[in-house]
Amino acid sequence: MSPSHIARCAQLAMMLEVSATPKPGNIDRDHNYCDTRFEHFLASAVGVYPILEKAARSDSGVGELIDLSVTESSKWQRGGNTHFGAFILLIPLVMAGGRCENKRCLKEQVQKIVKETTVEDAVEFYRAFTRARVKVKPVDDLDISDIDSIGKIKAQGLTLFNMMEISGSYDMIAGEWVNGFEKTFECSAMIQNKIRKYGINDAVVLTFMELLSRNNDTFISTKFNVNKAEEVSMRAGKILLKGDMDRIRDEIRQFDEVLLNEGVNPGSTADIIIAGLFVSLFEGMRF
Amino acid sequence: MSPSHIARCAQLAMMLEVSATPKPGNIDRDHNYCDTRFEHFLASAVGVYPILEKAARSDSGVGELIDLSVTESSKWQRGGNTHFGAFILLIPLVMAGGRCENKRCLKEQVQKIVKETTVEDAVEFYRAFTRARVKVKPVDDLDISDIDSIGKIKAQGLTLFNMMEISGSYDMIAGEWVNGFEKTFECSAMIQNKIRKYGINDAVVLTFMELLSRNNDTFISTKFNVNKAEEVSMRAGKILLKGDMDRIRDEIRQFDEVLLNEGVNPGSTADIIIAGLFVSLFEGMRF
Repeated sequence: MSPSHIARCAQLAMMLEVSATPKPGNIDRDHNYCDTRFEHFLASAVGVYPILEKAARSDSGVGELIDLSVTESSKWQRGGNTHFGAFILLIPLVMAGGRCENKRCLKEQVQKIVKETTVEDAVEFYRAFTRARVKVKPVDDLDISDIDSIGKIKAQGLTLFNMMEISGSYDMIAGEWVNGFEKTFECSAMIQNKIRKYGINDAVVLTFMELLSRNNDTFISTKFNVNKAEEVSMRAGKILLKGDMDRIRDEIRQFDEVLLNEGVNPGSTADIIIAGLFVSLFEGMRF
Repeated sequence: MSPSHIARCAQLAMMLEVSATPKPGNIDRDHNYCDTRFEHFLASAVGVYPILEKAARSDSGVGELIDLSVTESSKWQRGGNTHFGAFILLIPLVMAGGRCENKRCLKEQVQKIVKETTVEDAVEFYRAFTRARVKVKPVDDLDISDIDSIGKIKAQGLTLFNMMEISGSYDMIAGEWVNGFEKTFECSAMIQNKIRKYGINDAVVLTFMELLSRNNDTFISTKFNVNKAEEVSMRAGKILLKGDMDRIRDEIRQFDEVLLNEGVNPGSTADIIIAGLFVSLFEGMRF
């Protein structure tokens, strides 16, 4: 598969995730925040193309590629951080795609790529973090806002994979790196199972709800607390029990209003959906 | 400007046009047809990237590039013809972008490019037409469904520009080729004038309504008749007289329901909007 083809799978994954509606709390085609809008997500996904293509041709440099993605995305839109979490998953996945000789070796390759990351990757990643101005839980004595952190990373010889190991227990995205992209591939299988019956939009919506019901969203637990994240997951699970798609949709809309009012957005779940959509498209899913 | 940058301006133009809502009769983020959906337009815009990039590096081959666009678009989605009219405008515009040394020479260059088209371009264009299965008014004795047409084009030595001259009087898209992309650049100026006050979505919606009120949409007059197209333009003009954006939006929604029920879609106006958005983004518009 050509680097361009792989990069376009990633672009389209970002488009389909942000378009899927209704989704509780997150930006979608029908919901904007004050400063960040649906169109900012489209522009970010369009803008980042050359970095994705570069990633598909790269054997190393995960940290730098994530940093370049953030920079390129922000040149194309003024809505702030749109896809930082998604890039952390997409960059190694796209690189893995570039290494694959057949569609089925993606999982094996992406696991290799994250394990091969270096101290330099960790340093570049920290730069991207600062640039994207993302809310994160400080990792032990490594504080993102602390300029000395880079010194500490170097002194301790931490690779980017090591960094993810430190936060993997409570952070969904870091957890993907550590646990072989388990949720990502699970998510891809769910979407592909549902697409024929439900169509692309509802397949994404239902998978989003299932993921959310099974996992506390990191973005919510960081912005609020773990209890809030648990509460959101429980309600998502209850909504899915309604069975009928029309009723599920109505309930999501009500839930969405509550979350938007409270400023609660399950952003990390959206990142896993993007990664899962990428895998599906890479494996040849069309609609 | 790099070929990749120019190609991305075209991709984003397609995304922003199809997303803009509400628009009377056309697919947007809130309206699908039975077989063609919003997501098909996103996938088409993502998929066509490499052809757009190739166009930005090309000095000739307009007809072939339009044909390649149709082919590549249809590899990424199963919703049928999404962007044929848009490609007829975008391909020469993107090629012109690749030739430009500064942002202001686009108009001059695009006029040159369409005038330089050849008989071969006309032949390739006819192939694309057949592939895209577009409804068109037969051009004199050149019937698209007639395999002999290619022979006739060659015998008469018609270039693609000559072909556009034949249909330029009643076809908005062909008219752009003949009249120096006048409406495209007008449309770009309108969007850029409105974006600060209204934001990107409403700037596109208002420009769409203005264009529609001033011009009979070719897609409507081909599918129905000129009277129908005139009726739609008149109603669009009346809606704009409401002045207040909230009232305009409500009225568009009502108008939209009527047109969707009747299957009336001003597709050619949407194509001009895409071309206008491309020019705006090429000239540096951000949001």
